[in-house]
Amino acid sequence: MAGFKLGICQMPVTDNKGTNLATAREMLLGAARAGCVVAVLPEMFNCPYSHKYFHQFAEMAPDGETIGMLADTAKEAGITIIGGSIPERDGEHVYNASFIFGPDGRLLGRHRKVHLFDVELEALAFRESDTLTPGEDIEPIQTPETTFGIAICYDIRFPELVRTLTLKGALVVVVPAAFNMITGPAHWELLLRARAVDNQVYTVGAAPARDPGASYVAYGHSLAADPWGRIIARTDEKPGLLIADIDLEFLSKVRTELPVLKHRRTDLF
Amino acid sequence: MAGFKLGICQMPVTDNKGTNLATAREMLLGAARAGCVVAVLPEMFNCPYSHKYFHQFAEMAPDGETIGMLADTAKEAGITIIGGSIPERDGEHVYNASFIFGPDGRLLGRHRKVHLFDVELEALAFRESDTLTPGEDIEPIQTPETTFGIAICYDIRFPELVRTLTLKGALVVVVPAAFNMITGPAHWELLLRARAVDNQVYTVGAAPARDPGASYVAYGHSLAADPWGRIIARTDEKPGLLIADIDLEFLSKVRTELPVLKHRRTDLF
Repeated sequence: MAGFKLGICQMPVTDNKGTNLATAREMLLGAARAGCVVAVLPEMFNCPYSHKYFHQFAEMAPDGETIGMLADTAKEAGITIIGGSIPERDGEHVYNASFIFGPDGRLLGRHRKVHLFDVELEALAFRESDTLTPGEDIEPIQTPETTFGIAICYDIRFPELVRTLTLKGALVVVVPAAFNMITGPAHWELLLRARAVDNQVYTVGAAPARDPGASYVAYGHSLAADPWGRIIARTDEKPGLLIADIDLEFLSKVRTELPVLKHRRTDLF
Repeated sequence: MAGFKLGICQMPVTDNKGTNLATAREMLLGAARAGCVVAVLPEMFNCPYSHKYFHQFAEMAPDGETIGMLADTAKEAGITIIGGSIPERDGEHVYNASFIFGPDGRLLGRHRKVHLFDVELEALAFRESDTLTPGEDIEPIQTPETTFGIAICYDIRFPELVRTLTLKGALVVVVPAAFNMITGPAHWELLLRARAVDNQVYTVGAAPARDPGASYVAYGHSLAADPWGRIIARTDEKPGLLIADIDLEFLSKVRTELPVLKHRRTDLF
């Protein structure tokens, strides 16, 4: 497919799972009605970004309520859904995981966040590893539209991860994320644009809408960047659907004109 | 050393080598008078960025006229000089090479550009490999002030190169470069900021001043970014000395608070 419309659902996340699922479903259906063939949700879209909820809201694949809603909605709307992320239970472990469904409702793949957010900024400390387990795989996911790579939030800080996805064929890298009020203004746009330019891919950052009353306040500002690093869609902190036009012919043109992926000195790295 | 002043000499480059050397020398001495203990020159500061001059202006190390001027000026001013780049002859080959001198005039190291600029943009085509040979080493260079990494122009497009320099100890990555009027506005600031954030290093981009009459028109806009990705010094396209304050304590603080270099999943890349 030479191009397609992708919808980013910048949704509010509450501490009520049912409300979150209803909001997500409504926004996904709205994206389909707006002509999107792919729709993307933010990180932890069914659960507040807080240790006290991760285990409580976690679901086993493939039978969880959230996973079921995503599969049903994909089939009903006839679109590909990149399900942001949710807490996924697997035995004793809980992962920060993204589930991807095709327009027939079939599960096409999963990415478990591989880099956990353990930081001690002056104004904000968080240790995901207190409650979450890191993933062990970096694999792109094939959909009817293209090859997607998924990088969840802190994952995007690691150029090696997006490079690995790119070398394995990803053309659009989706980043469900909840950057905060410190790292968001400083780095969110920069990192998404830089990964796009370095790898000559589209990057899509999907954030939750901002809730100033939450214990962890998300930056919002979902955006998409093209392979030349231009921002092709952006929004502010409020809830809403953002639409990006993905043009895979433009991607090929950039790779032909400035062939950085062919110029890598793999003999020296 | 916890911090030091670094001067970026955004100099005009002409087709007269003697003029270029005199300009460079004057700006380096000016940087020393302004309190800089390190001064940086742009890419191909002694030679127009054009195939017809690279071989003609090339010099053998360590006896060339340009290399001699840099050594003498470093000693006279008592500063470290990162000599941008010049065409360096070695047998039949000509490299795009940077020579680094300590305050005693001693040669401390050399970086030969490892990624040659071979591109075919709609508005600009260039094939450095028609006349130049790529370098074969990625090694940081120790000076009295800190550990520097050097990436020459197109080198900065490769995250692996700056990562390699960082993992080998570089804390300040200097980028002598001549981005052009297409790639400059699109990517120059983005790449320098992103490499700084990804690697939690200072990045220093040293460009020649713009000459609108040249066959290859440089963007100018020398700048420096700190390890949090903030631009700490920037200029426009005109000739001038730009001073950046390098604060290695701040660098350590960033690395402690957001320890991305420790979080890399080297088991997966």
